[in-house]
Amino acid sequence: MISVSHSQFFPKVGDRVETIDTPAVVVDLDLVDANVSKLFALFKAKKKAVRPHLKTVKCPEFAQMFLSAGAIGVCVAKVSEAEVLAAAGIEDILITTEIAGDLKIKRFINLLRNHPKVKIVVDNIEAAKALDAEAQSARVKPSVLIELNVGQNRCGVEPGDPALRLAQSIGKLDSLELVGVQGYEGHLQHVHDRKERERLCREAINKLVDTVKLLEQNGISIKIVTTGGTGTSEFCSEFAAVTEVQPGSFAFMDVDYRNAIGTSYANALTIVSTVISKPAPNRVVIDAGLKSLSTDSGNAEVQGMKGIAYTPGGDEHGILQIDSASIPLKIGDRVHMIPSHIDTTINLHDFYICHRKGILERIWNISARGKVQ
Amino acid sequence: MISVSHSQFFPKVGDRVETIDTPAVVVDLDLVDANVSKLFALFKAKKKAVRPHLKTVKCPEFAQMFLSAGAIGVCVAKVSEAEVLAAAGIEDILITTEIAGDLKIKRFINLLRNHPKVKIVVDNIEAAKALDAEAQSARVKPSVLIELNVGQNRCGVEPGDPALRLAQSIGKLDSLELVGVQGYEGHLQHVHDRKERERLCREAINKLVDTVKLLEQNGISIKIVTTGGTGTSEFCSEFAAVTEVQPGSFAFMDVDYRNAIGTSYANALTIVSTVISKPAPNRVVIDAGLKSLSTDSGNAEVQGMKGIAYTPGGDEHGILQIDSASIPLKIGDRVHMIPSHIDTTINLHDFYICHRKGILERIWNISARGKVQ
Repeated sequence: MISVSHSQFFPKVGDRVETIDTPAVVVDLDLVDANVSKLFALFKAKKKAVRPHLKTVKCPEFAQMFLSAGAIGVCVAKVSEAEVLAAAGIEDILITTEIAGDLKIKRFINLLRNHPKVKIVVDNIEAAKALDAEAQSARVKPSVLIELNVGQNRCGVEPGDPALRLAQSIGKLDSLELVGVQGYEGHLQHVHDRKERERLCREAINKLVDTVKLLEQNGISIKIVTTGGTGTSEFCSEFAAVTEVQPGSFAFMDVDYRNAIGTSYANALTIVSTVISKPAPNRVVIDAGLKSLSTDSGNAEVQGMKGIAYTPGGDEHGILQIDSASIPLKIGDRVHMIPSHIDTTINLHDFYICHRKGILERIWNISARGKVQ
Repeated sequence: MISVSHSQFFPKVGDRVETIDTPAVVVDLDLVDANVSKLFALFKAKKKAVRPHLKTVKCPEFAQMFLSAGAIGVCVAKVSEAEVLAAAGIEDILITTEIAGDLKIKRFINLLRNHPKVKIVVDNIEAAKALDAEAQSARVKPSVLIELNVGQNRCGVEPGDPALRLAQSIGKLDSLELVGVQGYEGHLQHVHDRKERERLCREAINKLVDTVKLLEQNGISIKIVTTGGTGTSEFCSEFAAVTEVQPGSFAFMDVDYRNAIGTSYANALTIVSTVISKPAPNRVVIDAGLKSLSTDSGNAEVQGMKGIAYTPGGDEHGILQIDSASIPLKIGDRVHMIPSHIDTTINLHDFYICHRKGILERIWNISARGKVQ
């Protein structure tokens, strides 16, 4: 990743954050520690397991931090992400997205040969049969979870009878072991009103637990009932049938989550950027544009500066504007940007600069970045 | 990039595109060749040099293709991109974005020691002085271009007297050589009406050429007058004073550019994706979401399928929906998605799968991906 020509400019442990090159992903480890402690204490008190979703951090070192804090395993979205984490020694991995296609199924089954605790979701019997056939020929027995549509209308079999029929059909396959059910109320994570979010979440999770009950009434044992994101896990954990929650963004947070759920988890990650131009008193241009800050959930914010609006000014430019007064920034000054959507912003970058009180402590590759396969 | 655990699933030259794992970036080299030939023939006829902007392709191999076709050099947006291209043997590189900050300036000057033809833009005398000081201590003499604000209101000194004063001030600095002026009418690239785009472009470029004239009347020799994107280069090239154009997206195109300028350049790049779920007759879910297709310029389109709308369904899911009829896709089927914005979509991925007539011919790393510094 680091070519010889500029390795001398790459940050080193002990450097000060305010001297590193920009744009860069800066993580305050003290704040991450606090977020992690808070979340694990909450679910320990509620007697629920935590399986953090690594689609946010994309990094084995942060995964190990979660496991040390008490996580029972991790979630990822893709087989290629699971490969990175398994190679780093993490075994209990749930892939939360369905797969299809001969090569992908072979790739998943191949991963299982040495990492049998990798699990995956299914929502369709034809896909399950394809998985079963490949598993049989490789002599492995994948653990699968049925994904249930609890209202997000993305993937997932419908609750109740359709789920029961799928579970019964999977039960007839020799090489798949049905171990659980996954629901994910992704559409509710950013409902701003807490009471409304809780009410809608209860509706969604009732579909999940009612279906689990139906399966068990029909003699199908369900060990894992997994659901919940950063915005809903607290509510999901009130249901006795739910065995584990899957939050991910709590570690770093972002503007979108802060607007929805407040500041109980701290914003622990920023993109540090430099002012490269000041063409007008009320407008400066920074070196962080669409390639440094994702925009799928709105625009990033400037940390610690009220009333200054950021808009992307192209791939590599960001424009900071203030309505009337002169903006209190000059060329060469640095700003810390709070991402609007943490997952997709991290996905743009190659490494984390982790510090405590401004002194670099760790530089971690975002090893699962771009692992979309 | 390719870990041992899954290298057997990585595509190889000679494979068929329709068997590779998804999501993946697929490039039709025949169409790229046609786009490149068409563009270079156009500007050869107009007697203008072409300096393609590599913020689109981010890849030395495509840069070499442009140079073979007659490009006089290339543009990049960042110093870290220039490092990648210089390491690959490309010498005449214009960095089209201002830089600031001690470390960044040192990094740029360091690159110049072995690659003296790397050039950069400036729009402010204080920034120019900082560059000059570092150049002086390193005993190099960077070539700089003044960036002019021709209406985009991003970076750039104002046309006319402010630009003249900046040029005169730069002239007094010992270690900078002022070689040109850059204008970039980025705000006009996607004006849909061709006549209106041409009219507005003429207004913008008049500011550029009038300023060049003013500098020359004041005894300042300007060798390079550079401007123009895929949507405007044709109009820019009508001005005698313009010496070169900077198009980039023409090589691959995207939905946003096609909607603006039509299909004279072919769509040569798609993201191939697999249907992973069909929860309803009129809705399927594909494995390409926010981490595979950028959304800053709207949503991607399904190639060759009219009336089917794509919306991202999260980081790793894409939802294809049709209003009434059943969607003619089943689990495991593949679709080719046309990116809405090519630069930011490529920036999500690590390699190009390049084919002719469906047979893999080249697999090229997107080596300058994520080089935002």
